[in-house]
Amino acid sequence: MLTEKLGVAFIGMGGAVATTAIAGIEMLKSGSNGLDGLPLAECKADGIVDYRDMVFSGWDLCGDDLGSAALRHGVIGEAELSNGASALRTMRPRPAVGSVDFCANIDGAHKVAALSHRNAIETICSDLAGIRKTQSVNRLVMINLASTERLPDLASSSFASLPQFERGLDADDPEISPAMLYAYAAILSGVPYANFTPSVAADILPLATMAQERNVPIAGKDGKTGQTLLKTVIAPALKARALHVDGWFSTNILGNSDGKALHDPKSLASKIGTKTKVLDEMLGYPVEDHIVHIHYYRPRGDDKEAWDNIDISGFLGQRMQLKLNFLCKDSILAAPLVIEIARVLDLALQRGEGGIQDQLGVYFKAPQTGSNRKPVHAFGEQQMILDTWLRNAN
Amino acid sequence: MLTEKLGVAFIGMGGAVATTAIAGIEMLKSGSNGLDGLPLAECKADGIVDYRDMVFSGWDLCGDDLGSAALRHGVIGEAELSNGASALRTMRPRPAVGSVDFCANIDGAHKVAALSHRNAIETICSDLAGIRKTQSVNRLVMINLASTERLPDLASSSFASLPQFERGLDADDPEISPAMLYAYAAILSGVPYANFTPSVAADILPLATMAQERNVPIAGKDGKTGQTLLKTVIAPALKARALHVDGWFSTNILGNSDGKALHDPKSLASKIGTKTKVLDEMLGYPVEDHIVHIHYYRPRGDDKEAWDNIDISGFLGQRMQLKLNFLCKDSILAAPLVIEIARVLDLALQRGEGGIQDQLGVYFKAPQTGSNRKPVHAFGEQQMILDTWLRNAN
Amino acid sequence: MLTEKLGVAFIGMGGAVATTAIAGIEMLKSGSNGLDGLPLAECKADGIVDYRDMVFSGWDLCGDDLGSAALRHGVIGEAELSNGASALRTMRPRPAVGSVDFCANIDGAHKVAALSHRNAIETICSDLAGIRKTQSVNRLVMINLASTERLPDLASSSFASLPQFERGLDADDPEISPAMLYAYAAILSGVPYANFTPSVAADILPLATMAQERNVPIAGKDGKTGQTLLKTVIAPALKARALHVDGWFSTNILGNSDGKALHDPKSLASKIGTKTKVLDEMLGYPVEDHIVHIHYYRPRGDDKEAWDNIDISGFLGQRMQLKLNFLCKDSILAAPLVIEIARVLDLALQRGEGGIQDQLGVYFKAPQTGSNRKPVHAFGEQQMILDTWLRNAN
Amino acid sequence: MLTEKLGVAFIGMGGAVATTAIAGIEMLKSGSNGLDGLPLAECKADGIVDYRDMVFSGWDLCGDDLGSAALRHGVIGEAELSNGASALRTMRPRPAVGSVDFCANIDGAHKVAALSHRNAIETICSDLAGIRKTQSVNRLVMINLASTERLPDLASSSFASLPQFERGLDADDPEISPAMLYAYAAILSGVPYANFTPSVAADILPLATMAQERNVPIAGKDGKTGQTLLKTVIAPALKARALHVDGWFSTNILGNSDGKALHDPKSLASKIGTKTKVLDEMLGYPVEDHIVHIHYYRPRGDDKEAWDNIDISGFLGQRMQLKLNFLCKDSILAAPLVIEIARVLDLALQRGEGGIQDQLGVYFKAPQTGSNRKPVHAFGEQQMILDTWLRNAN
Repeated sequence: MLTEKLGVAFIGMGGAVATTAIAGIEMLKSGSNGLDGLPLAECKADGIVDYRDMVFSGWDLCGDDLGSAALRHGVIGEAELSNGASALRTMRPRPAVGSVDFCANIDGAHKVAALSHRNAIETICSDLAGIRKTQSVNRLVMINLASTERLPDLASSSFASLPQFERGLDADDPEISPAMLYAYAAILSGVPYANFTPSVAADILPLATMAQERNVPIAGKDGKTGQTLLKTVIAPALKARALHVDGWFSTNILGNSDGKALHDPKSLASKIGTKTKVLDEMLGYPVEDHIVHIHYYRPRGDDKEAWDNIDISGFLGQRMQLKLNFLCKDSILAAPLVIEIARVLDLALQRGEGGIQDQLGVYFKAPQTGSNRKPVHAFGEQQMILDTWLRNAN
Repeated sequence: MLTEKLGVAFIGMGGAVATTAIAGIEMLKSGSNGLDGLPLAECKADGIVDYRDMVFSGWDLCGDDLGSAALRHGVIGEAELSNGASALRTMRPRPAVGSVDFCANIDGAHKVAALSHRNAIETICSDLAGIRKTQSVNRLVMINLASTERLPDLASSSFASLPQFERGLDADDPEISPAMLYAYAAILSGVPYANFTPSVAADILPLATMAQERNVPIAGKDGKTGQTLLKTVIAPALKARALHVDGWFSTNILGNSDGKALHDPKSLASKIGTKTKVLDEMLGYPVEDHIVHIHYYRPRGDDKEAWDNIDISGFLGQRMQLKLNFLCKDSILAAPLVIEIARVLDLALQRGEGGIQDQLGVYFKAPQTGSNRKPVHAFGEQQMILDTWLRNAN
Repeated sequence: MLTEKLGVAFIGMGGAVATTAIAGIEMLKSGSNGLDGLPLAECKADGIVDYRDMVFSGWDLCGDDLGSAALRHGVIGEAELSNGASALRTMRPRPAVGSVDFCANIDGAHKVAALSHRNAIETICSDLAGIRKTQSVNRLVMINLASTERLPDLASSSFASLPQFERGLDADDPEISPAMLYAYAAILSGVPYANFTPSVAADILPLATMAQERNVPIAGKDGKTGQTLLKTVIAPALKARALHVDGWFSTNILGNSDGKALHDPKSLASKIGTKTKVLDEMLGYPVEDHIVHIHYYRPRGDDKEAWDNIDISGFLGQRMQLKLNFLCKDSILAAPLVIEIARVLDLALQRGEGGIQDQLGVYFKAPQTGSNRKPVHAFGEQQMILDTWLRNAN
Repeated sequence: MLTEKLGVAFIGMGGAVATTAIAGIEMLKSGSNGLDGLPLAECKADGIVDYRDMVFSGWDLCGDDLGSAALRHGVIGEAELSNGASALRTMRPRPAVGSVDFCANIDGAHKVAALSHRNAIETICSDLAGIRKTQSVNRLVMINLASTERLPDLASSSFASLPQFERGLDADDPEISPAMLYAYAAILSGVPYANFTPSVAADILPLATMAQERNVPIAGKDGKTGQTLLKTVIAPALKARALHVDGWFSTNILGNSDGKALHDPKSLASKIGTKTKVLDEMLGYPVEDHIVHIHYYRPRGDDKEAWDNIDISGFLGQRMQLKLNFLCKDSILAAPLVIEIARVLDLALQRGEGGIQDQLGVYFKAPQTGSNRKPVHAFGEQQMILDTWLRNAN
């Protein structure tokens, strides 16, 4: 199996996560950065693309070159742009399909003027074909890094089956979101797709069915980076020690555009939703007071701070408290996951394994699984599943 | 296989951990407490003793009845003693073998006046025989919960082989500690032995050899309750995410007699030793600044507070901090582990599996393994090893 | 000046703060508790009432005896009730004037069936007269400890002047709250009044005017106990050191009935309002991101936890963070303040000083001052003002 | 009174605090930085030197230019050196008087080869005269910023009186430290002197007497920047609220050369000494468990982290905890204090006020006062004393 170049197309190419990921790989290519922070750096799976063979493209509602965009996010600076990541200055995203209805706090001028859902899909498919040609790549992966959308009305009939979704597209159902249009276009084009955001996309039944039928790898959703990562690390240990969780209070402050998008209560609802279910599923009982808050707090920029308080009771019913305070960098935690997700999706395609890729669950807050499979949330178990999958060529 | 009563003999029977464990089981017997906080409450392994079939005995340098001792520790109170744990008021430890040389800050009047090492061993063996008779139990387990001793001089020739240890006993080698005398007596009497303290005991080569030869189950050492538990939960996740640990600063405050014993620098050295190696072994590289401190701080009594700061660097070398603050109760975390260790050791004896019990590593900071086996420290992996062992009757 | 008994009438007599205050003083009278935690225990001001000369009465929407009420709050337990605070078992509050419109999450059956505002006031005045008689006290003080009400519509014409307020009473203006009715009744009866809650009460112009005209001491509002106390302690120091506050994020978790009342967004708005203004006024510039949250979190009961993160920048614009984590007990912090407020109000009455008592500002989050005086918020300065007032008899 | 240039001579001119202070003032002169973080920026006292009129000189055991030194400390970077602070590249310290006996972990090649105490003093005096001439300044101030020395044997007869100190100098008493030689030379030369370190210097009786007799302003000691600052801010509030401090546990991690110096147990003893007395003096009772630790932890460099846990008990003896976590920058907090101390000492000289300058106590952990005056530690009170002194020209 010959390893060639892999094209990675980001929805939200100018965002903090995408620009950080691209900068890191470009610095790696130029030799000014090593393999630090890349979880699968030591993976030897046959066919997995070399980091240096990844090339990038994508869409964004803001048309700025990636160098300018990156400086605005403040994760990488002039030093990196001068030292290995200069390629970003010449990269520009394509205009994106967006919707103020679905994401109220984030809009931009660099938008596709789509006349209809079908028209938007055509544009995306044509973009994918163009990317293949321009970048001379056979293999492509699409990853959604766009701002979180509001929850759609999941009771809409469009989401009941693939034929009904097709009819919804024809009828321009307003509950069909930009995130879904991108996912549809990817699957239609045979391009593996991952959803790193909490938005509803390929996790609706019609798109999961379509990916299965066309044997296109998909994965999601909502990258597991900071607070939820810690939750899935710590909760299984509490369970193993029979320490009962009486309450888990989680609050977050962040000041990047992700925080700004989440300042819109509708986008926030999507995010909180994926964060809360996890805990009960891991522990095996409902935690009476599991509270999760995210606050837009500008002094921090992309630096995120999570504070957790866990009330536990143990032997003889006696109570204890565990507090976590994580001063993290959102994009620094997310970017390497995005890179590894792209590599694993591409490897799945090469292995001929389409549909939902359960083995990627370790990288997601709300792991998407097939209809009959319960998601695994415990971090250690998830990691073992991925490691096993990587070792075993089928 | 018939489940009958199991006698559990504690070295340090009047201490906070032992009295808490005994109180919990007595309350369970009386119906005033449930199975909360017992990690293996749902284990269905054939032959594992029922909690209600455990009976207790042991030794202590303080001769008080366990009710008075428990009240002094402040973990259980009058309410528990009136409500199910009243049996403690009538329990008294036997006089203990102790040594001010090995444990400077803890001494007591309730001491065996042993003329020699051999004489001390005879006393312990005779105690064990007496316990079997008095409590009408066939099966016994001994667990060391005594105050931490200073490190012996491990270069002493007594520790080179079992024959040399025997000669050391004959010659009253001052480097042979009380903890070793107890372990020797247990193995000699065919009684499974576990060391829940950081003291050097059955982990010396002569005693491990003796346990192997006589097929007596042993396990150790140093119960993994609070801060180190969290370390072995979190470090594997940091490794899986390629987050490099630049430094890990751990400090503890506690005010119970464990804290007082550790106020003696020599006892502290034993404790710190078992705490530090763990991290490097899990991560696979030496952490340049791994600092561990324990401070005796009276306002807290048995309530212990651990504070950890972890400096990590990730993608693009960028740095983050994770802070943990654990307000825990030492004895509440430790007591159920002690109970489960006793049950598993007894099960191993029933299964005919002697020598070092690697599967108990999940309960220890410094898991004892056979000479050719590297210890596993990652919590998730340890738990899986125990679960597998429990499921598989041999 | 003869020191005699002082009657203290609490609105919310069965609440956690009132029952804790009463229990503490009753235990003091019985000799089973000392002067711990009472800020003015060493004050020698001429005429200040002795703690042992305080007697209690009041109103509550719940008619339970104070012993039962106290046990429910979980601040004092059976031990205290048997040991000095047994008087609580025989104390019962009078039925209270309440309004579901003003306080949605708290209601009770023990309610005055008032036909009109005027009728409610008559009932309260008659209660005050009854209390004087029953308790044989000449001097009374009324303190509002009731659950936080929603903000009234302050644009209502009733709040423009005392005559208009009188007309509003006549017309049963629905914007006139129970808290205002109690304050009106107190002032009318010549009884000093303090508002320990964030509800709008004697801080409206008509009632402040009335207190001034009738020379009745009043003070308010919103007791300064935990997080805001720390704010007013720390912010002045940051200012003195020229450390600029870029952001201050404050979050609170608590599970008592105060937390439950604040779970109603309208009551919460009142509370948050008094918490936020303070900071800007102390620093002398608006803090761009000052965020305050209060969350109802049941595992904690009356134990409250406040977490603050302060982003500051200093010399050369470099940035630092200060984090505070206060594990406090709401009622234990509040009860002694309530007692001291009563004593100081009574002393003001004796000194013939009516109207707003600025010197009590140290005990309030939103110190009430006369129309031409700016409130002082810095804790050190506030304390000095009170100390000076206490020393100087006029 | 004419404001002219003021020369500031730093012992430890190449250290992190000195280079940060100098860089800040040079950037101010060049217009690339403002008055941020300077506590007395708004002080209008007649005669106080303008920041732009300060010029710098000094001594260091390392002879590097200040630009190189500053880059090594990592507080200011290339950006500052290119942008306003370029003057540092051409500044070099004079060789310093040092002693490996007094400061074991810090040594350097740039050392005065003094044959005797008297010879060292002559060199320092001659340096001071040279500085006046080279920098064309009439007024000079000397500030000790050198690494912390071990405690001298304070029972040495040299410290009993000024004449005995003179004899000690003649006899090269080994208990007379470099810090004392510098202080002696400053006072002899009529140069105001402050000790920003915990080393013993002008606080010995002979030097305080000498400063008084010669009417030279002196102040000290040990700059109050992070953890102790917070202590003196918070403890007075706890006292005012009658919250009893049962224990105060303070730990610090830092990785700069100050941390390295303190890694020597003898230097650490000096530091801890000045940190602990403060608390008891403020509270008025001895805190049973007041524990202070400083740990050298390299990942942090100049960034310092302080963690405090305060156990308090309040009304009814109930217990609470307050935790502080200060992520600060040592030199960023210290540099502006050093600048203000220099300005105030110079102003005192102009006002003709010699001897110990109590009004500077707000900037020191262990405020030096005259023999009959008790030091004030409460931050608010200290600040008021300084403000009053600045306002009142004598």
